[in-house]
Amino acid sequence: MKVQTSDIFEIMQAELRLVDERVARAARIDFPLVSRLVADLVRARGKRLRPILLLLAARSYDYDRDRLVTAAAGVEMLHTASLVHDDSIDRAAIRRGMPTLNSKLSSGAVILIGDFLFAQSAILAAATESTRVVAIFASALGDICDGQLREMLDGHRLDQAQADYEKRIYGKTAALFASAAEMGAVIGQAPESDIQALRAFGADLGLAFQIIDDVLDFREHSDVLGKPAGNDLRQGVVTLPTMLFAAQLPGDAPERATIEAIVSGEERDEARIQAIVDAIRSSDAIVRAEDVAAAFADRARARLHILPDPETRAMLRDVVELAVSRSS
Amino acid sequence: MKVQTSDIFEIMQAELRLVDERVARAARIDFPLVSRLVADLVRARGKRLRPILLLLAARSYDYDRDRLVTAAAGVEMLHTASLVHDDSIDRAAIRRGMPTLNSKLSSGAVILIGDFLFAQSAILAAATESTRVVAIFASALGDICDGQLREMLDGHRLDQAQADYEKRIYGKTAALFASAAEMGAVIGQAPESDIQALRAFGADLGLAFQIIDDVLDFREHSDVLGKPAGNDLRQGVVTLPTMLFAAQLPGDAPERATIEAIVSGEERDEARIQAIVDAIRSSDAIVRAEDVAAAFADRARARLHILPDPETRAMLRDVVELAVSRSS
Repeated sequence: MKVQTSDIFEIMQAELRLVDERVARAARIDFPLVSRLVADLVRARGKRLRPILLLLAARSYDYDRDRLVTAAAGVEMLHTASLVHDDSIDRAAIRRGMPTLNSKLSSGAVILIGDFLFAQSAILAAATESTRVVAIFASALGDICDGQLREMLDGHRLDQAQADYEKRIYGKTAALFASAAEMGAVIGQAPESDIQALRAFGADLGLAFQIIDDVLDFREHSDVLGKPAGNDLRQGVVTLPTMLFAAQLPGDAPERATIEAIVSGEERDEARIQAIVDAIRSSDAIVRAEDVAAAFADRARARLHILPDPETRAMLRDVVELAVSRSS
Repeated sequence: MKVQTSDIFEIMQAELRLVDERVARAARIDFPLVSRLVADLVRARGKRLRPILLLLAARSYDYDRDRLVTAAAGVEMLHTASLVHDDSIDRAAIRRGMPTLNSKLSSGAVILIGDFLFAQSAILAAATESTRVVAIFASALGDICDGQLREMLDGHRLDQAQADYEKRIYGKTAALFASAAEMGAVIGQAPESDIQALRAFGADLGLAFQIIDDVLDFREHSDVLGKPAGNDLRQGVVTLPTMLFAAQLPGDAPERATIEAIVSGEERDEARIQAIVDAIRSSDAIVRAEDVAAAFADRARARLHILPDPETRAMLRDVVELAVSRSS
């Protein structure tokens, strides 16, 4: 059974609209200027993979629709809050094709707006009135912060193991995918084995998603992502393509020293940085990183056999497709 | 019955130690540098009025001690997290007599550490396994952000009503006092009327506390608070002493124009700013602001008659004393 990925949005349309309304309502804030900026941010929504995953994880089971929509809105809001702080930390100017808040407001205001959105996401999680959902939510927030701290404090070393990278992107990205799937299954009162399978599915899906994100960071032009290609490396963050590229260099290769200098912030010469970005981009490190993502995607798909409903299984497989076969 | 305020800490010693341990454990983070900074921050604890209030609110009733300590640790952690972001927003260099994180780390790292502490506070709230406690917690977080946004966006006008000021400090400070008392009473399974009385007590106590804070901002020397006297006004934030001082000036008084220029950031001449700070400081606006705080403190005390246990009532009255009769 094959559901067209475009169908997912159609099949889920009614529930996604409820989620959007719930998010918009929660983001309402009674200062005109900030209110408009936050509303724009929420409207310029991304792919909404996390709420879709949460909704689908409940779909084979018996769920309370209002609770499910509330949790899905909470997950999307948490994701949005973390993007606001992320952009402020990275001093990013563009996100989702729009100027970021920190290109328009003081850094203090951006911190507070991010906190406000975190608070709203916590209020949504609490409104599910499920202590288990709240506990999953709180620990996802903890994992996200852990992943981001790891990236900031530990991501700037070229000599790290692939396991360190995976731990980092698990926290930064995969934990919320895992938690979204788990929350949906919990609200659906799924059997415990299904809850665990869906959580593991979400984690693998999230890892595949983030690796593709890190590949796209090298591959895309700035007009698509709003950032120069190789933005992570320019910020000193070592991701899988850089790691795989460096791993096959001889120990005394000059490129290794250059990458180390870029990562430590010593190398600031644009031409030399661009040359390394181009070298990584045209190397087989890109395809090999995609292979790692594909392996996680396969592992995710393999976890689905336990689910009772074939249509939902097919839709979840298509979510995997959406996550790995994207251009941005 | 009169309990010496010094006795409170003695009577509550065992439970406060458990709270401290719980906070320290939750703040553990697996990066050596950050771990040390966060541990210092948590150890250099303030007066711990919020956890004390939470513990006392349950004291007349039948509570589960572990749950109570967990909630108290959550409240203290939430307060600490919000101070971290606050100091980063204000670019403050000293807090609790110690250099702030933002005097030592990049602003991005400080945002993430604040988020990490928020996450830990949410994990503690979730660990109470009470949906009502979690809902109170989440809405307190929302109120804090609302109060801080109000201060940032609306606090820079001299022509505001006292009610606007009170709404702002309610969110910024009193909401967490109210919520701490409510959580304690909820965990104590107090009758609903007692829960509401304790929540209202906490709110009034918090308002009194913040007004005294705003008075001390004018009265104290920099060696006590680590900030110059009149720091709020220097940052453009209008608090009660400034409002009361301005309200009794004739409409065309030159001081009014000067204050407006300081608040809008146009007046940067240190001598002229200091002259206004001194004028407010030596005016009766200080005593009148203290009178407003005293009225909230009285209202707080009057709410206590409903509580069953006289010793706990006396201790809560002494918490009011601690909050309003302090030098910093």
